[in-house]
Amino acid sequence: MADYVRECLERTERYLTDKLIPFWATRLAEPEYGGFQANYDRHGCRTGVTEKTLLCQARSIFVLSHVARMGFEWPGCREMIAQGIAFLLRQFQDPVYGGYYWICEADGRVKADAKVIYGHAYLVYAFAEHALLTGEDRSREEAARLFDLIASRAADLRHGGFHEHFTRAFELACVRPDGVHAKSFDVHMHLMEAFTTLYELTREAHHRRALEQVIDLIFARMIEPEFGVGVSMFAPDWTPVPNVQLNTLWGSDRFDVKGKPPEVTSYGHNIEFAWLYLHSQDILGRPRSECTERVVPIFDHTAERGVDWEHGGLYVEGPRDGAATETNKEFWQQAEALVGFLDAYLLTGDEKYLKAFRNVHDFVFDKMINYEVGEWFPLLDRRGRVLWDYMGHNWKICYHTLRATCQVVLKLRQIVAGRRGQAPSRRGE
Amino acid sequence: MADYVRECLERTERYLTDKLIPFWATRLAEPEYGGFQANYDRHGCRTGVTEKTLLCQARSIFVLSHVARMGFEWPGCREMIAQGIAFLLRQFQDPVYGGYYWICEADGRVKADAKVIYGHAYLVYAFAEHALLTGEDRSREEAARLFDLIASRAADLRHGGFHEHFTRAFELACVRPDGVHAKSFDVHMHLMEAFTTLYELTREAHHRRALEQVIDLIFARMIEPEFGVGVSMFAPDWTPVPNVQLNTLWGSDRFDVKGKPPEVTSYGHNIEFAWLYLHSQDILGRPRSECTERVVPIFDHTAERGVDWEHGGLYVEGPRDGAATETNKEFWQQAEALVGFLDAYLLTGDEKYLKAFRNVHDFVFDKMINYEVGEWFPLLDRRGRVLWDYMGHNWKICYHTLRATCQVVLKLRQIVAGRRGQAPSRRGE
Repeated sequence: MADYVRECLERTERYLTDKLIPFWATRLAEPEYGGFQANYDRHGCRTGVTEKTLLCQARSIFVLSHVARMGFEWPGCREMIAQGIAFLLRQFQDPVYGGYYWICEADGRVKADAKVIYGHAYLVYAFAEHALLTGEDRSREEAARLFDLIASRAADLRHGGFHEHFTRAFELACVRPDGVHAKSFDVHMHLMEAFTTLYELTREAHHRRALEQVIDLIFARMIEPEFGVGVSMFAPDWTPVPNVQLNTLWGSDRFDVKGKPPEVTSYGHNIEFAWLYLHSQDILGRPRSECTERVVPIFDHTAERGVDWEHGGLYVEGPRDGAATETNKEFWQQAEALVGFLDAYLLTGDEKYLKAFRNVHDFVFDKMINYEVGEWFPLLDRRGRVLWDYMGHNWKICYHTLRATCQVVLKLRQIVAGRRGQAPSRRGE
Repeated sequence: MADYVRECLERTERYLTDKLIPFWATRLAEPEYGGFQANYDRHGCRTGVTEKTLLCQARSIFVLSHVARMGFEWPGCREMIAQGIAFLLRQFQDPVYGGYYWICEADGRVKADAKVIYGHAYLVYAFAEHALLTGEDRSREEAARLFDLIASRAADLRHGGFHEHFTRAFELACVRPDGVHAKSFDVHMHLMEAFTTLYELTREAHHRRALEQVIDLIFARMIEPEFGVGVSMFAPDWTPVPNVQLNTLWGSDRFDVKGKPPEVTSYGHNIEFAWLYLHSQDILGRPRSECTERVVPIFDHTAERGVDWEHGGLYVEGPRDGAATETNKEFWQQAEALVGFLDAYLLTGDEKYLKAFRNVHDFVFDKMINYEVGEWFPLLDRRGRVLWDYMGHNWKICYHTLRATCQVVLKLRQIVAGRRGQAPSRRGE
């Protein structure tokens, strides 16, 4: 496998610097009003969508800062981030109730004034990563201030964890047709991710404690250890509930009317959680070797049930103890599986994870990347035929593809350097 | 009983205005350095203790503001509060880690820099009550800011509720010899009390939600409905643990080495909780009649097990299903029982509660009040002989005696006016 790893590293590095970074470096900033815009068609041309989502602004600030901090900065990168932060602070902040709006028009007028914790998690992540890159006090203070806002508005003091959906005035909002004020694995995972980078920045006791508590909560309430899978949705008291389409503008998951029972698990979320958890342990100063028991069941379930060993790539979802039920291949699950399987190999040395990585990497590089412009198609069928063909929209930004490609380069470098079993270093050197 | 109520009202009003208010109006402000000082001996002379506790500063600001807002203001009252707030903001605030220190020297130098949530609950209460009295923006903003601080530093995101003891830097501190990071009924009750007044002030959705969640948490985790009693102490996951002496400067409860098992309940805390809960429902806009099922078991247990029907007054504590085991009579339990039994009578019309009130009121007015100077002795034996004789110290301030006496006057006025069954009005008019 040594030759494969070296060739794969070379191929991935070349794609990252020649194709993927240039795609976003020339497109992500929105020149007319400022901020970021991710709506591009398969030819890399702007679509008719002009609105700007909080998620796009926050993820763009995060990922640009992250890529730069990993050592892949390009000229103008920091200026691009700075104009995005200026637009975000000017247009998305609510001066009355605090927090940030969910969607604005191109020029910054408020379009949807809901307060969504998912978006606020990414704001913490974005400002913390930017402060780590630049040392800027304003970003550091805004990250810490947003943590306080999330804790004081969204923490569930009765059952632990966080409420996720609010009106502008931070009244609880119900976004499910069944009236349940649900809590989700997805949002709590991204809060873990945000608190990890916040703690990396501040080293403050209460940020560390929040990170540790969210991790404990996820393992206690949201992961089924016997299967190594996550459960998607819960009532406030942590009773699992079906995963259903939300009555809010949110992502592009696909649902039928009755939703998905709690037994249906997302392979992509599971493996994304596993590697983000391992990363959180690095930041907390704990050896990855102590995490083996917790993460190996997750990696194994993903490799055994989630990988399409016939046609390649990671399926969308399936029951925890059976075969996949949505066999299409969506972009973000591939991205997170690439990072996760490399981490699994680095942790255990088991070649089966490197094989799973190779399976997904081949699928992405042979079928999912649109080499005409450099980004990934959002959705292919099981055999790799394109179902959806845009390069970006309000919920497909560069967060998954760009971060994962950088992380793959760093982790492959680590393997090539023979440093398996060590905690990963910044820049993979 | 009508004659009794009228005579009792007269006697209580006279005592309040002629004795109790003058005692504190002339003594609470500390003239040399500012702030408040409650260390007075049985003759009303300053003792040798000069340090100033956060609890004394916060409770003094609260109770002075409260008394004034109830209609019992005296000339100079607001100036006394203002100098106390100035001292508190100048000397107790931590400019580095946020929050307020636990104990300062007379001149304001920091003596104990721990961050204790009990003290911070009273700060919220103090600033909110002061803002309600005066309309001052600074007090309103500080109350809201303190809420955010408590939520972001102390909320237990894993199990709900709040952690209670921290170092200066908001690391969790262990103050029990058995190493348990305990949560307590006492602190959560006073957080409920603080959030009630905060919500009365701000009417903000997240303050209302915090209040509702803490109430639900207390009833779900800390009250045993079959007995109508509270449990004092819990592990972080809500397993009851013994109530033991804390390794921190804290109150003047009396413990032996092995502590008290969870079955031992505090009659004073139980009835204090019941009436503070009823008050919270007024502020939330819910009819008291809907609370009957929740509070009657508490009032009944207190009347049946807690009241000394032979010698008068309320015992300290006992097992939930047996006779009192500490039969001394401490000041604060009497104060809270006076208010609680009047609320029980006002809610149900059952004369047994008026009898229990009369029992405790007679005991206080015949035995506990030190008429020489006007405050209450802190501890009597079962028959009413004085065991401890100071009028105030760092943990016996005017919070219980002055608030309860004002509340008794208001509630007796309500009974005299024939308005039983209605929510109590401000000033009892």
